[in-house]
Amino acid sequence: MDMESESQQAGAQRVPRLLFISFFLSLSLSTLARAATRRHEWEISYQFKSPDCVRKLAATINGQSPGPTIRAAQGDTVVVSVKNSLLTENLALHWHGIRQIGTPWADGTEGVTQCPILPGETFTYAFAVDRPGTYIYHAHYGMQRSAGLYGMIVVAAAAPGAEPFAYDGEHLVLLNDWWHNSTYEQAAGLASVPFVWVGEPHSLLINGRGRFNCSAAVAGTCNATLPECAAEVFAVETGKTYRFRIASITSLSALNFEIEGHPMTVVEADGHYVKPFVVKNLNIYSGETYSVLITADQDPNRTYWLASNVVSRKPGTTTGTAILSYHGGGSSSPPPTTPPTGPAWNDTMYRFQQSVMTVAHPAHVEPPPAIADRAILLLNTQNKIDEHIRWALNNVSFTLPHTPYLVAMKRGLLGAFDQRPPPETYAHQGYDIYEKPPNPNATTSDALYRLRFGSVVDVVLQNANMLDANKSETHPWHLHGHDFWVLGYGIGRFDPAVHPASYNLKDPILKNTVAVHPYGWTALRFKADNPGVWAFHCHIEAHFFMGMGIVFEEGIERVADLPTEIMGCGKTKGGH
Amino acid sequence: MDMESESQQAGAQRVPRLLFISFFLSLSLSTLARAATRRHEWEISYQFKSPDCVRKLAATINGQSPGPTIRAAQGDTVVVSVKNSLLTENLALHWHGIRQIGTPWADGTEGVTQCPILPGETFTYAFAVDRPGTYIYHAHYGMQRSAGLYGMIVVAAAAPGAEPFAYDGEHLVLLNDWWHNSTYEQAAGLASVPFVWVGEPHSLLINGRGRFNCSAAVAGTCNATLPECAAEVFAVETGKTYRFRIASITSLSALNFEIEGHPMTVVEADGHYVKPFVVKNLNIYSGETYSVLITADQDPNRTYWLASNVVSRKPGTTTGTAILSYHGGGSSSPPPTTPPTGPAWNDTMYRFQQSVMTVAHPAHVEPPPAIADRAILLLNTQNKIDEHIRWALNNVSFTLPHTPYLVAMKRGLLGAFDQRPPPETYAHQGYDIYEKPPNPNATTSDALYRLRFGSVVDVVLQNANMLDANKSETHPWHLHGHDFWVLGYGIGRFDPAVHPASYNLKDPILKNTVAVHPYGWTALRFKADNPGVWAFHCHIEAHFFMGMGIVFEEGIERVADLPTEIMGCGKTKGGH
Repeated sequence: MDMESESQQAGAQRVPRLLFISFFLSLSLSTLARAATRRHEWEISYQFKSPDCVRKLAATINGQSPGPTIRAAQGDTVVVSVKNSLLTENLALHWHGIRQIGTPWADGTEGVTQCPILPGETFTYAFAVDRPGTYIYHAHYGMQRSAGLYGMIVVAAAAPGAEPFAYDGEHLVLLNDWWHNSTYEQAAGLASVPFVWVGEPHSLLINGRGRFNCSAAVAGTCNATLPECAAEVFAVETGKTYRFRIASITSLSALNFEIEGHPMTVVEADGHYVKPFVVKNLNIYSGETYSVLITADQDPNRTYWLASNVVSRKPGTTTGTAILSYHGGGSSSPPPTTPPTGPAWNDTMYRFQQSVMTVAHPAHVEPPPAIADRAILLLNTQNKIDEHIRWALNNVSFTLPHTPYLVAMKRGLLGAFDQRPPPETYAHQGYDIYEKPPNPNATTSDALYRLRFGSVVDVVLQNANMLDANKSETHPWHLHGHDFWVLGYGIGRFDPAVHPASYNLKDPILKNTVAVHPYGWTALRFKADNPGVWAFHCHIEAHFFMGMGIVFEEGIERVADLPTEIMGCGKTKGGH
Repeated sequence: MDMESESQQAGAQRVPRLLFISFFLSLSLSTLARAATRRHEWEISYQFKSPDCVRKLAATINGQSPGPTIRAAQGDTVVVSVKNSLLTENLALHWHGIRQIGTPWADGTEGVTQCPILPGETFTYAFAVDRPGTYIYHAHYGMQRSAGLYGMIVVAAAAPGAEPFAYDGEHLVLLNDWWHNSTYEQAAGLASVPFVWVGEPHSLLINGRGRFNCSAAVAGTCNATLPECAAEVFAVETGKTYRFRIASITSLSALNFEIEGHPMTVVEADGHYVKPFVVKNLNIYSGETYSVLITADQDPNRTYWLASNVVSRKPGTTTGTAILSYHGGGSSSPPPTTPPTGPAWNDTMYRFQQSVMTVAHPAHVEPPPAIADRAILLLNTQNKIDEHIRWALNNVSFTLPHTPYLVAMKRGLLGAFDQRPPPETYAHQGYDIYEKPPNPNATTSDALYRLRFGSVVDVVLQNANMLDANKSETHPWHLHGHDFWVLGYGIGRFDPAVHPASYNLKDPILKNTVAVHPYGWTALRFKADNPGVWAFHCHIEAHFFMGMGIVFEEGIERVADLPTEIMGCGKTKGGH
């Protein structure tokens, strides 16, 4: 059941006390007076679904995948009670792009901020949405996100007219890729020797709908006439301007999104206003969100494709489609054209240019600190550990501990994870990023980076060649608990003596997810001012599973008493 | 890693202290002096396996399914450290037929005796094997057993010659049924409206090996030449006598097992010696074990089939096969014959007669108490609850609580489950068991039966017609923590005023699992003298999942302090 109430303090009575107190301490009284509490009650269960016309067991929220959209206004409190009705499987839900200021235990990252939610349990997430914008939520446990647990969060600006653009109507577009194999099969394959790769997605979904070619499906599993897999229809009226809030929650695919015949003006990225620029189509990576404006100024007597296409990997998946329909959505007929196929999949510079183009709106620049206190240089490589293929940063492949860092650090459970600091850099001067890794060995570790509270941290992500020759992929890196300034991108080897001079310190965009292009580097800066423990990882589900992530701690001593609800695993099993 | 050591107290140092102390208190010093500790270290993970030549993700123990055989001698201690390396899924392992006297927390029944083992955790089971015989272990959480987590326990008699029969060699036969669908799909189907039934097994396995017809498999998934799915070969030498220890761990199927050309003398059932009788083939239900003796007295220059066939349901599965090979297993060639097909699947009386024939060995009769203190009469029906198909006892369909009963009762957590007693009987006088249930409605409940410690309890299980006309199935009921005397069987309606007079009080067999035949009843008696909380349920995986079970409590006040390792879920989450 989903409920929204405009209640204030009294309405929050069902929030666990500790969550409640610590959360409201961080809000000013004036905000409180206007803030609403947006309540949702969710039950997570497996259901048979046919999002692309092929029947598959999907993890659902109240029977649906994607789950319900959370709508709130800036300053509201969102309270989501999550009941785990999976049979044998645990659960955690992450609120992607929400910084969780004062509520680090509500970040929903299993192993980092909480123990998983057991079958039969109800866990309540309560957090403030302090910035308007377009966000996502999704499972953050194992590879569970790929099973269907995801949806959108839309936070409206607190006041009308606060945003630097206007529009007549709004649509939500949630992009995904989809496999008929279970996430268990996918994960087991990734962990196998030899490596078993699931292959390219079976379908691309738009708002949970796609279309697989039934003639290629296992007999009896595919039904192309199901309403459930009919293309989504987006209604417009001639002459009006629409905001499309676009999010990608793909497990693997970098996508290019196009609305046939309707150029898009990019105005928002990851909850921050962008200096507007117009594109024919939009490159979007897993974990990113954008808002674009389009004007309905085309022939209203036909329909138009919305199309998502795989880029950055050689596509093996049919274009994902939906329909733009004039006259208020009067027609759901397919357009008379073939769907747009997007740019060449391997045109890295095309995507690079969009990255560089994405800077802060002139009226909404938040200037970064001029210098950093610390710079961490992370080489992204594919490695082998005991014949398993893994991803590593500076030859360290990440593994999650079974006691969440947040609890382990707050309680001083030093044995819960490796206490040695992970490497700050790699031997970059002699490294040829265009060659296969000279040392493909790596070690696994659950060590984390401890940041001085309030310090300014630069991270440079350096991409490189994979284990196979002439291969480098795009990695969308996502930081929990913060936005970061995107100071620069390059193709080639990052040189700390050269490239920082070219950083954009004038109007860099703030984001929470950013692409590292093939053979490229991306430099970002953030302020370690949010007490808690925060994951930073490649948002490709398989890559994080294979070790492509790190974790930051900052200001743990400033974190309020932890709710006991996040405990119960690892060294906190049975109340220890 | 599996290890066996003849160590005494010192060797047990790695057992958690509480398990250790309470366990050894229950052993006499003289037993201690000779008892060995049998240690096993198991890691549970998903692996791709092809038990019937079709590749499927299976839950494995140290990479194997079936798992390793646990071998011990009467009076030994078995210590199994179970590390959960599943990605997102919890776990519990049950030691089927082991009474767990003094160690009720080691029974491995999720929701009854323990919280599940979380991913990353290691849980140590430690228990005495106090009786010689043939037992089983398997997962007891959701429908996880069907995913491949099962194996055998063989407990040798403490002294040579203690058993009332002799043999030259021994073989283990572990029977199973197998589906290519995942257990998640199976469970979701059972819980769906409309009900989605997985269908008859794809294969019957003998020692984890079967053979699916590759031409009927999804392309690319089946490989008939894999050594992994080659039939097991059982080696014999002419003139010798062999004990075959036979166990069935099927999810669904009642089986008939035959060794072509070799009559079997039944000598053991569920760890108790049977008054020997000879059969051409053996009916065996899920959760049962038997030992039979055969003599290798046939033409040694050919091989012979071991065959398992579905009975009691209309078969839709090819005969499961293995090979008996003379000259010490010199040949693995298929026999020149077609495999035995067993008796007519619907010949209930054939199976009924075997049930009645199975009584205690004259030299090993343990007479039951002459009268019972309490009699519980349980009508087994198929019902509908909110359009879901469920199984019920006296119109109550069982659900597991999320706080294990053992913990909830010991700690007085009264809110953890329904405190009202479940029904002792049903309106039997007017009930026509041959008709569809007149009242198909039922309620779900997690209430349990509280038994006076030391009291003698009779349970009569009454089978009946299912929701569809002219349909009644065999249900193998399994009791945890006890053996029960099987006092009688009947076909038709049990009349408490008539049938108890015909109970066998002279030489009833003790068992832990017993069949309730179609439209039949089975009467059993046990002494409530094992402090703890114990499940009693139909051993068909889908039936227990759909509510076909109850739970007994007895002497909870005599249970020693519980190990905290079994806690951490439900009302004991986070140490509450």
